[in-house]
Amino acid sequence: MDARPVMRWHPLRGEWVMYAAHRLGRTFLPPPEYNPLAPTSDPEHPTELPRGKYDIAVFANRFPSLTLTAPQPEPGPAGTRAGVGACEVVVFSQSAQGRLADLSDEQMALLIAVWADRTTRLAEGGTVRSVLAFENRGVEVGVTLHHPHGQLYAYDHVPPVQARMLEQAQRYHTEQGRPWLGDFVAEERAGGERVVLDGGLALSVVPPFARYTYETWVVPARPAARLSDLSADEQASLARVLKDALNRLDGLFGGRMPYLMTVHQAPLDGEYPEFPLHIELYPYLRAPGRMKYLAGTEQGAGEFANDKFPEVAARELKEVVL
Amino acid sequence: MDARPVMRWHPLRGEWVMYAAHRLGRTFLPPPEYNPLAPTSDPEHPTELPRGKYDIAVFANRFPSLTLTAPQPEPGPAGTRAGVGACEVVVFSQSAQGRLADLSDEQMALLIAVWADRTTRLAEGGTVRSVLAFENRGVEVGVTLHHPHGQLYAYDHVPPVQARMLEQAQRYHTEQGRPWLGDFVAEERAGGERVVLDGGLALSVVPPFARYTYETWVVPARPAARLSDLSADEQASLARVLKDALNRLDGLFGGRMPYLMTVHQAPLDGEYPEFPLHIELYPYLRAPGRMKYLAGTEQGAGEFANDKFPEVAARELKEVVL
Repeated sequence: MDARPVMRWHPLRGEWVMYAAHRLGRTFLPPPEYNPLAPTSDPEHPTELPRGKYDIAVFANRFPSLTLTAPQPEPGPAGTRAGVGACEVVVFSQSAQGRLADLSDEQMALLIAVWADRTTRLAEGGTVRSVLAFENRGVEVGVTLHHPHGQLYAYDHVPPVQARMLEQAQRYHTEQGRPWLGDFVAEERAGGERVVLDGGLALSVVPPFARYTYETWVVPARPAARLSDLSADEQASLARVLKDALNRLDGLFGGRMPYLMTVHQAPLDGEYPEFPLHIELYPYLRAPGRMKYLAGTEQGAGEFANDKFPEVAARELKEVVL
Repeated sequence: MDARPVMRWHPLRGEWVMYAAHRLGRTFLPPPEYNPLAPTSDPEHPTELPRGKYDIAVFANRFPSLTLTAPQPEPGPAGTRAGVGACEVVVFSQSAQGRLADLSDEQMALLIAVWADRTTRLAEGGTVRSVLAFENRGVEVGVTLHHPHGQLYAYDHVPPVQARMLEQAQRYHTEQGRPWLGDFVAEERAGGERVVLDGGLALSVVPPFARYTYETWVVPARPAARLSDLSADEQASLARVLKDALNRLDGLFGGRMPYLMTVHQAPLDGEYPEFPLHIELYPYLRAPGRMKYLAGTEQGAGEFANDKFPEVAARELKEVVL
C-alpha cells in the first residue's frame, strides 16, 4: 500500500494538517464474516492478527495518517513536509462483540500498561515527541470497525492541545509552586459534588469546566506526567475507575453511549513533571437521543456551549445503578 | 425565561466554557405548522418575527449562551463568572424552504451588509470584543430549525481561534512586512489550481492547508480586517462568490451538503489591520454519504487528518456543473 502521508502547516491556526490520500479506501463496516481485528482462523484468509490466544494486541495501522518512514513529499505549497509519526491499532480483546468496559479489572489494568509501554517504545527512536492514545466509539461518530479497539497517534512534534496543556500547567506550577493536578484532586475531593467515584489511588470527576455535558475525567490521585510514572497499584486503580466511568456512561440512558476517550500524557522529548496525566471521556449524547454537535462557537471560536452544569451531570452519573 | 448564562475557565485548555442550563429545553424540529422564524400570520400565535415584508431579520436568541445582562452567578468553582455577550438569530429570508444559496445576488449582498452592521452595532457598547457570524446547516449536524438562518455570537473577550489567527497574522506581517491575506491571494492566483472561482474583488479557494476535505474559503481580493472595511462593490463580489461556493457544495454529491460556515473578523477592541477577514466553509461530507467526524487526533491533539489533497478537492469543485 502506498502510504505517503504529508503534513502541511495551517498558517492562521498555527497547526499541522495531515494528508493521507490512501485512507479514503479504508475498511468501512465490513460484514461480520470478515473482521480484520479477530484472530486469524483460516490461514488462507489472514486477518491483521495471528492465530492464538492473547489479551490485547497492538499493530501498525494499515491506513496511517503518519509513518516513521514517510518519504519526502513532492514539492508543494509552503509548509509541506513528510507526515512523520506513527499510527497503531490497539485491539482490546479477542471478543468482537464486547465493549471496553467488559474487560476484567486485570485486562483493563493490562491495557493501561500497554498504553504506557507503547508510549515509551514509540519514543525510543527519538523522533516521536508526543503520543495520544484514544478510543472513538459508536457508529454515530463514524467508527468503521465494531471490534473493540482504540488507536495510538505518535507525533514528531507536540500537537497544539498538549502544547497548550503543558504551557498552562507550567504557568500554574510557577505561580502556585505546586502541580495543577494535585490541587485539582484536593479541591474536587474537598467539595465532593463532582467526584463520581473515588477509588483511592485514582478518581473520576466531572470537571467544573466540562465542555461536554457528561464529560468525565479519570485522574490519578498522585500527580504524574505519564502512565509509566504510575505504580502497578496506581495503574490498577486508574483501570478500575475508568471501567466504572465507562459503565456509568452506558447506564445513563440505557444504551451504548457514543464517546471519545483520550489519554493525555506529557511530551516525550524531556521531563515535564508539571504535565497533568489524565484521561478525558467525551460522551456525545447530551440527553437521550440528542447528540452534541460542534457548531459555530465550538469550531469557529474554540469555545464550547454546554447545556448542563457539571454538578448536575455528576449527580446523574453517581445515581446510575450499575 | 431565566437566562442566566455562566462562563467557567478551562485551566488546561485556557479557554472559556459557556453554561446555559435553560438551553436544554429549546425548540427542536417543531412541526411545520409552527415555525418561529416565519413572519407572524396569526397575532394570537405570534412567532419571533412580526407581520409584514422584509428580506433579512435579526433578533435576540431566546435561548442565549451569552447575554449582555447576565447577572453575577452564585459563588461557584474558581474561574466562574457571568456569561456576558450576545447571541442573535439572523433569518436569511421569509421563505421557510429555501437555502442560503437560493438568495438573489442582491439579498446575499444585503446579508453581508447585515453581518457588517450587526458587528459594528454589537461593539458599540464597548463590552463586545469579538463577533462570530455563522450558519450551521443540516439535520446531520443537529440543526433544530429548518427555516434558513444563521447566528451571531458576540463575546466580551477574544476567543481562542480569533486570538490565534490575530497572533499568527501579526507575526507574519512583522516578518514579511505585508498582510498575510494579500500574499495568500497572490499565491493562490499565481498557482491557480486551488482557486475555485475568481470573482475579481473576491475569490473562493480550497486552501492548501484545508482541514475538511472540501473546505472552501471565500476571501476578499484586497486585504481587509472586517466586513465593514469593504466597499459595496467588494461586498457584492464576496456575496456572489459565496453563493457560487455554496451551490458547488450542494452540486458536488447532488444533495444538500451539511456544512458549517463561519465569518472571521478582527477583534473589536482596537484596530487590527493585520487580521485577515475571510469566510470558512466546512462541508461535513468527505465522500457521498460519508461524514467527517472529529475523532482522537482532531479533538485530543488539535490536528486534523484529511483524506484528500486540496488540489484534488478544488478540481472536483470546479468541475461541478451549476
